Amino acid sequence: MMGDAINIMDIDTVGLDLRDPSVVIIDQTKLPGEIVLKKLRSPQEVWEAIRRLEVRGAPAIGVSAAMGLYVIASDLAGQYEADEEGFFAEVKKQSDYLNSSRPTAVNLSWALHRMEEKLLSMAGKSRKEQVEALCTEALEIRDEDIRVCRQIGENGLKLIKDGAGILTHCNAGKLAAVRYGTATAPIYLAKEKGWNLRVYCDETRPLLQGARLTSFELFSSGIDTTLLCDNMSASLMKEGAVDAVFVGCDRVAANGDAANKIGTSVVATVAARYGVPVYIAAPTSTIDMATPTGDDIIIEQRDGSEVTDMWYEKPMAPAGIKVYNPAFDVTDHELIAGIVTEFGVARAPYDESLKEIFEKKKEITGRLS
Amino acid sequence: MMGDAINIMDIDTVGLDLRDPSVVIIDQTKLPGEIVLKKLRSPQEVWEAIRRLEVRGAPAIGVSAAMGLYVIASDLAGQYEADEEGFFAEVKKQSDYLNSSRPTAVNLSWALHRMEEKLLSMAGKSRKEQVEALCTEALEIRDEDIRVCRQIGENGLKLIKDGAGILTHCNAGKLAAVRYGTATAPIYLAKEKGWNLRVYCDETRPLLQGARLTSFELFSSGIDTTLLCDNMSASLMKEGAVDAVFVGCDRVAANGDAANKIGTSVVATVAARYGVPVYIAAPTSTIDMATPTGDDIIIEQRDGSEVTDMWYEKPMAPAGIKVYNPAFDVTDHELIAGIVTEFGVARAPYDESLKEIFEKKKEITGRLS
Repeated sequence: MMGDAINIMDIDTVGLDLRDPSVVIIDQTKLPGEIVLKKLRSPQEVWEAIRRLEVRGAPAIGVSAAMGLYVIASDLAGQYEADEEGFFAEVKKQSDYLNSSRPTAVNLSWALHRMEEKLLSMAGKSRKEQVEALCTEALEIRDEDIRVCRQIGENGLKLIKDGAGILTHCNAGKLAAVRYGTATAPIYLAKEKGWNLRVYCDETRPLLQGARLTSFELFSSGIDTTLLCDNMSASLMKEGAVDAVFVGCDRVAANGDAANKIGTSVVATVAARYGVPVYIAAPTSTIDMATPTGDDIIIEQRDGSEVTDMWYEKPMAPAGIKVYNPAFDVTDHELIAGIVTEFGVARAPYDESLKEIFEKKKEITGRLS
Repeated sequence: MMGDAINIMDIDTVGLDLRDPSVVIIDQTKLPGEIVLKKLRSPQEVWEAIRRLEVRGAPAIGVSAAMGLYVIASDLAGQYEADEEGFFAEVKKQSDYLNSSRPTAVNLSWALHRMEEKLLSMAGKSRKEQVEALCTEALEIRDEDIRVCRQIGENGLKLIKDGAGILTHCNAGKLAAVRYGTATAPIYLAKEKGWNLRVYCDETRPLLQGARLTSFELFSSGIDTTLLCDNMSASLMKEGAVDAVFVGCDRVAANGDAANKIGTSVVATVAARYGVPVYIAAPTSTIDMATPTGDDIIIEQRDGSEVTDMWYEKPMAPAGIKVYNPAFDVTDHELIAGIVTEFGVARAPYDESLKEIFEKKKEITGRLS
């Protein structure tokens, strides 16, 4: 199926087929050329889909793994009808295996741990009841993601108006989550309201998530989408085309410094020059009050071949050249106009406002993190 | 020959083989994978080499065309031994033909016009003398380019110290000129002095001149060179790795605003945040006192396929997506620490200092432009 033949908004990034227990993902390695829905049944299939980035984005990975563990448990249940201990041990083993697919993704271990806890809480029940409980828990993890993204969208929507120009960087879109995404959530909700936004997507070198994923998902959803290279934002803002920047984040420190895909701080610096507000869409799960400032966030350096060879028919730089390739950068809190969470928009001073967000979260959910 | 087997500093970007009259260029479409020297003899060969960007960069194009016209005239001279009028007409026709290869490159028409004037000044002389005068003029155009670049290098060198980190964007290197380049001239002169600079090259999307050309020529010259994506400059500057930015320019306005390859103003904005001075290397031929400000410079918009399809094995964005692809941007003069010309470094206020540069030029050369 080609991108312009279907509306990707109609398909969740990760779903569960209950009649034929399997995880159904949009294979992101095939985008933007083809929309391929892939069914994952075996532990190997789930593991490889995460490993090979067929499904990516912290929330989407967590949901895929949780659903995968349910599918695996459902398949194992018959063999262990009379052996709860063996069943629990085998599910734990498969959970550890799934968790090894991308060891650094926090949501992955978080979601799998939650599934394991759910199973332990069902000790003494039948395999059928235990498997049903796992199914419910996986769907609840998915629903929470959708809810959080939608709330971020509603809070972000208050920051923009019909007709606005929005610039985004990398993919903090529905393809990184289940539905709505984080940075894209206000855009999708605006579309639901019938607003006409103009959205500009940085292509996001070196891995081109903006070109391959964000511009694809927005364009496929019928949103007025324009692609640009990462070095074109100053021209665009100088023309007055951008009213706000919305980006996601990988981690927000307690002082409001935000680590996100490399180039985010460049966009934020340029935006400051042209008076364009920068909003960080951040589920509270990505706000780390134990990290005092951005300086405490360790930045992963990645292989230079991503810059020189990947995507190209032949290498685009001399063999042996040194490459500087940090995966993330930190945007200083003073460049950030607001941090949009599911519990409201935090504003400077962030050391106070982020605490208030967590107090509100505790009030509403009873949970602190 | 592979890039690491020869030192490209030993070869001029454009040269003249006098024994076998021909223009010798480094075919830039083959870089960085191969160094291919190509001989151009016929009008078609010169025209196509310029058209296909086998030779590129305003100074290099001008020199190639001038040398090409000499080679063509040398070849024609025999047929027109007794027919000066026919010879002049044919040379003018070929000059117009070469000028059509890239009609917007100012140096191209400037160099060809200068060759035509030289020929007219030799009216009444023998074909042999006329051809020799064209040869001398072509070599003089080349020598002037080398001299201007070297003077820019000497003036730029005073702005940096041994051990410095220099960031550059796009290719204002020797591959855009004959020798030294403009933005790279201080780097090559530092190398001659035995200094150890660290040079950082923005890859420069969408056409990747930084990766394919600048990092190639510097690395091949034994300079400590690191390649980065255009969105990584903030991280690099935050680490303190960059002491100065040197870039070329396509046109400088009378107030010091400078149009250069897209992304230059992004680098300059980021540099301002981190206190890194930005220097524009500008032969006086690129300073246009008739253009009051950067707002008066028209920016060329180029085809979106450069962003979505070029270089890639398959398109990297959804078919039909809108693309914003300006070829240049304008860096505000307030972001520029100095404009480095062959007659010295202009500093703010530029409306005064650029006038002084031209007064100095008139004193030394007797010419105003």
